[in-house]
Amino acid sequence: MTRRGARAVPDLVARATDGDPAAVARLITLVEDTSPLLREVMTALGGRTGRAHVVGVTGAPGVGKSTSTNALVASLRRAGKRVGVLAVDPSSPFSGGALLGDRVRMGEHALDREVYIRSMGARGHLGGLSRSTPQAVRVLDAAGCDVVVVETVGVGQSEVEVAAMADTTLVLLAPGMGDGVQAAKAGILEIGDVYAVNKADREGADRTRRELRTMLSVADRREGAWRPPVIQTVASTGEGIDDLLAEVERHAAWLEETGELARRRTLRARGEVEAIALGTLRERWDRAGGTDLDLLAGRVAAGELDPYSAADELLAQGSVTSSS
Amino acid sequence: MTRRGARAVPDLVARATDGDPAAVARLITLVEDTSPLLREVMTALGGRTGRAHVVGVTGAPGVGKSTSTNALVASLRRAGKRVGVLAVDPSSPFSGGALLGDRVRMGEHALDREVYIRSMGARGHLGGLSRSTPQAVRVLDAAGCDVVVVETVGVGQSEVEVAAMADTTLVLLAPGMGDGVQAAKAGILEIGDVYAVNKADREGADRTRRELRTMLSVADRREGAWRPPVIQTVASTGEGIDDLLAEVERHAAWLEETGELARRRTLRARGEVEAIALGTLRERWDRAGGTDLDLLAGRVAAGELDPYSAADELLAQGSVTSSS
Repeated sequence: MTRRGARAVPDLVARATDGDPAAVARLITLVEDTSPLLREVMTALGGRTGRAHVVGVTGAPGVGKSTSTNALVASLRRAGKRVGVLAVDPSSPFSGGALLGDRVRMGEHALDREVYIRSMGARGHLGGLSRSTPQAVRVLDAAGCDVVVVETVGVGQSEVEVAAMADTTLVLLAPGMGDGVQAAKAGILEIGDVYAVNKADREGADRTRRELRTMLSVADRREGAWRPPVIQTVASTGEGIDDLLAEVERHAAWLEETGELARRRTLRARGEVEAIALGTLRERWDRAGGTDLDLLAGRVAAGELDPYSAADELLAQGSVTSSS
Repeated sequence: MTRRGARAVPDLVARATDGDPAAVARLITLVEDTSPLLREVMTALGGRTGRAHVVGVTGAPGVGKSTSTNALVASLRRAGKRVGVLAVDPSSPFSGGALLGDRVRMGEHALDREVYIRSMGARGHLGGLSRSTPQAVRVLDAAGCDVVVVETVGVGQSEVEVAAMADTTLVLLAPGMGDGVQAAKAGILEIGDVYAVNKADREGADRTRRELRTMLSVADRREGAWRPPVIQTVASTGEGIDDLLAEVERHAAWLEETGELARRRTLRARGEVEAIALGTLRERWDRAGGTDLDLLAGRVAAGELDPYSAADELLAQGSVTSSS
């Protein structure tokens, strides 16, 4: 076996699509933002993606996201599915608090070759979701995963981000945290496709479920729209997990039938392409020395030109399309 | 007198450069991010800016930023200068906690026609510095201000932002906050051109000043570089404020002599022009319906194309320069 670093990208992609976990792990490393091979890998993956169903799992700290993800993976494995897990939650036991360990094992699934688990660092990205996550999802997709689970801690912006990235967003709540409905108010009612009240054996679970259902029923929903179900689970024992998975699959089928899947994925791709294009331009303009931007900035600094006219000139001058 | 809304931009600019405070206030409102007249105003101001010296004032909450700003304004007024103040600190008494009140008065200077005071909301901008601040600085500059003071609360990113925007950055500390040197460690040693230990009548002021000087002397400074002075002030009584202002003026002279002023302003303009150009592109691409970006996103979603190649196509297709 050759050393990892010596493998060429097409070879790695071939191995990954054959299901080699080491190749998958290496490719995920190669699609991190700062990787010089990022573009090469993404181009090589083009055409091999779009099969996997992406499930986002989010919720406040303490609701049992990791335990639920673990139980979902077990259920998917029993159904014979190949599964990828991206744990973007920095507090997740999958990540063990380490910064992007090359490959992190998850308890019972660690030796299962049909489960890929990867801890993504959330560093340098305010929302809590690593910027490399969409690329990592594509790697797992190309590697033949039927389902990719993206787990992220539900703080602030990251629920919205995971929802934007997922085909199906699963929002977890737990009773007795004093925040069930509070959390719901904070915006999760907008993003969940399926809700689970976890720790359903605890006091207050029924109340949390009832409150959540009431709030969801109030939400403005058009005819034929998806009505998010609320499932009760005890992830630690696996109770309710098959029901939860059944609802995720029902949502997946609904997405397909209504054309909503294509719509969501196009919207997601739009955001990705736009961000990459803007990043590319910024890189070009940021190259030091004598660029059009430098000359225009000098004129703005000298008070000869306003910054808006300078920006228009920059865009009109073809600096955008020149590659040097 | 015609109604404000009926005034054309060139008329407003003429009045503002004549020193009409109502016209200045109106123009600052018109250069907010969402204003439809933003570009027209900025173009009309082009060529009238670059005279004002921009002083950033930052520091942790409680060090006396507003009191110091107030005292600096009084000192500048005694010297016959026209002064603009932009208070971006949401906790600043200038802003009174209100969201972008049209014009907020500052105690003793409220009736002084040579002082313009404006509270800038920090909403929608993580760093704490309103995105409209550079434009507002340009309005005050064009209105003939000799000095524009930008006051911002020193939390996280905003010190760095104010430093990027200012010609001279004034960092305030106070003794006995247990954070003098802590704060210094957190990055303010990199950004200050002039330091003030305010509340110098309090216990521990000498120690804070000594520690700060030691840390500043350790910092790597090239030959001929500016060595940031440390001044002791009691802003509430005005003690030390004239010395502080003298150091700000000495720094302004140094910037001019060494060519550093042009360098800083060019760098600043570069960032502004780039941000405006990228924002313009994003707006163009975000227009709904049948754009190149939509078509490319569809191909990415269908798995026919990777997002990086799509981004390259987007940039190559001239979508960038077409204005529709």
